[in-house]
Amino acid sequence: MGPLGKHSQFSDGYYMFPKLEGEIAPRMKFQGKEVLTWSLNNYLGLANHPEVRKTDAEAAAKWGAAYPMGARMMSGQTSLHEKLESELAKFVGKEKSYLLNYGYQGIMSVIDALLDRKDVVVYDSECHACIIDALRMHMGKRYVFPHNDIENCEKQLERATKLAQETGGGILVITEGVFGMTGDQGKLDEICALKEKFEFRLLVDDAHGFGTLGKTGAGTHEEQGVINEVDLYFSTFAKSMASIGAFIAGDEKVIHYLRFNMRSQIFAKSLPMILVEGALKRLELLQTQPELKDNLWKVVNALRDGLHREGFSTGQSNSPVTPVVLNGTVGEAAALSHDLRENFGIFCSVVIYPVVPKGMIILRLIPTAVHSLEDVEETINAFATVKEKLSGGIYKNSELAISFGE
Amino acid sequence: MGPLGKHSQFSDGYYMFPKLEGEIAPRMKFQGKEVLTWSLNNYLGLANHPEVRKTDAEAAAKWGAAYPMGARMMSGQTSLHEKLESELAKFVGKEKSYLLNYGYQGIMSVIDALLDRKDVVVYDSECHACIIDALRMHMGKRYVFPHNDIENCEKQLERATKLAQETGGGILVITEGVFGMTGDQGKLDEICALKEKFEFRLLVDDAHGFGTLGKTGAGTHEEQGVINEVDLYFSTFAKSMASIGAFIAGDEKVIHYLRFNMRSQIFAKSLPMILVEGALKRLELLQTQPELKDNLWKVVNALRDGLHREGFSTGQSNSPVTPVVLNGTVGEAAALSHDLRENFGIFCSVVIYPVVPKGMIILRLIPTAVHSLEDVEETINAFATVKEKLSGGIYKNSELAISFGE
Repeated sequence: MGPLGKHSQFSDGYYMFPKLEGEIAPRMKFQGKEVLTWSLNNYLGLANHPEVRKTDAEAAAKWGAAYPMGARMMSGQTSLHEKLESELAKFVGKEKSYLLNYGYQGIMSVIDALLDRKDVVVYDSECHACIIDALRMHMGKRYVFPHNDIENCEKQLERATKLAQETGGGILVITEGVFGMTGDQGKLDEICALKEKFEFRLLVDDAHGFGTLGKTGAGTHEEQGVINEVDLYFSTFAKSMASIGAFIAGDEKVIHYLRFNMRSQIFAKSLPMILVEGALKRLELLQTQPELKDNLWKVVNALRDGLHREGFSTGQSNSPVTPVVLNGTVGEAAALSHDLRENFGIFCSVVIYPVVPKGMIILRLIPTAVHSLEDVEETINAFATVKEKLSGGIYKNSELAISFGE
Repeated sequence: MGPLGKHSQFSDGYYMFPKLEGEIAPRMKFQGKEVLTWSLNNYLGLANHPEVRKTDAEAAAKWGAAYPMGARMMSGQTSLHEKLESELAKFVGKEKSYLLNYGYQGIMSVIDALLDRKDVVVYDSECHACIIDALRMHMGKRYVFPHNDIENCEKQLERATKLAQETGGGILVITEGVFGMTGDQGKLDEICALKEKFEFRLLVDDAHGFGTLGKTGAGTHEEQGVINEVDLYFSTFAKSMASIGAFIAGDEKVIHYLRFNMRSQIFAKSLPMILVEGALKRLELLQTQPELKDNLWKVVNALRDGLHREGFSTGQSNSPVTPVVLNGTVGEAAALSHDLRENFGIFCSVVIYPVVPKGMIILRLIPTAVHSLEDVEETINAFATVKEKLSGGIYKNSELAISFGE
């Protein structure tokens, strides 16, 4: 059944595959009861913004969900796709961008198209599953550096440079703008500084940084002052943009090459027009309503300060992703999470082994622009209580923890 | 620039990335002029069916494009997802099904989750790019058989059986219900008959068969009388269903396992609710309006008969996909296609080297339920004329063909 499936008789429908009902907002329904949710990457609150909802509804009425049918290259090209690409490129500070029909397969094909077997990859050990899947298709060599360990990254670049000189290939460095589990930013600035010593191209997956970081919200590369030094900038629409689809941005020449060579884009359908129109509106709001990002950070900072005051660690996070690190077994995590949901009305993701080391529990909180400071206070109070119960061994002896057999 | 990109200065915006404007229908606009289109996989005409358009519009107004946010397992589960899964399973004759957020990455992760390095794969040489990409991630052995060569498939199964006995793994056979370029059905019945001699599981990608083949439209496995023998049945919503998303169907136990182990589904967002509601409506129409499929086949048969009468070959096709096989250079293909679009107002896909062997041109026609018999006649007459011009060498000496340098 695999590591996630083995607890399915206890977890299915509750810890895994829970149903959150009602409008996407801080207060939703779980099993009929209202819960305060901290588990949706709706950073800027755009999912339910009235202008977004209006655009989504009008676009669907105008186009239906089918248009344009077919792959971009065959029959799926439209002027609005091109318009969105041009606005995205401008916003993230690149010459050109290209839309991708889905982020996961999109970045896989970006990486696949960039590489041949002579090329060498150097990448962060905590890169997202989609990047790892892309690298599983790569026939050439790849070197991994421990998460955000730039000294080690430099060592891998030395090895990669030697090898690339032999093979005649190039070097692609891959990291993320923000790591989604731990919330710490990739050290883009330090990696870019290594360009003085080594020749490589840098690809950054900025799923969580786009819209949340940088002065204008352009992303982690703006935040760290390396807009030009990041060669290829990728983001999904699944987080701040509250939609699906994605884009890749970079130099005109590289984007032109990618348009003709990404397998999942050549051999699968174009991003539907509903989502293109929706993304144009979201991008507009993201640029014209900076108060959304300001409010997000107000909530993030209040949450983080409150948690720290109560003695919680939020690890290395320097993005809106707020991991609360606790110690305990999988069974204790289940009992604690059950208590939070049932008795405190608080719903958040619980990350356990094998995603984090055995004995570690991470309660992952995703603040949004539409949470309030009262939501923050309520949550911190609840967390203080369950933390005390956890360290007092109360969850350990609960029926639920025992049923997990740990 | 790659095989498709190398002609981009001539082809970009015309042969590649053309814009088809207006409602999805047999008559659309290309560069401001009306064209009769044969290039959209809108088999049943559902893209623009009034009930489908109404459902798409209402679903978007009700849910927006964001809901539910998050991966299925974390926060993307809803009762409507489950309802659609149960109806799809019933329709295709399987115990259970599971929705996939996109077909391309979906089937990649199905295959990836089913295999470990001990397992052996036997597959048809013309399987779609998404299947090939999945197999590129496979660490174990794979044996390919020439397209639809069942004698050779049996040889590969002999080799695979020997190897699997050594490794202790299983055997997965992969083919397609209908091959999208050539339109011939995979020989599912003959492959299933090999189960008497060999132990294996069969996965079928039925993108083009779902909705178009079989008595009820359930697919190629119904058409060939092997509903039970096909172990895993996959289809995208991108063709007959005129949407995006996909599903995998099979035994309860296998689908339960897949739910917890498909990387692109665990680590990427759930299929948006707009598309789930839309798929429920499309599936309903597909079942309650058999006249859609009947009309599709009336058009397919008229087109095919007319083409054959004019001396054209449509290869081995026994599905709605109608490839018209001609001989000529890439430059001649461009000139012929240009003539068809500009002077006959007919728009279809042109398939050239490297997708087919050098010297071959395939004009690929996709009939739909909403084409008329007049559309068919107009097309056959135009084809007869351009065929004569092609064999008379008229395109060869055209400026356009010469500019392609061939």
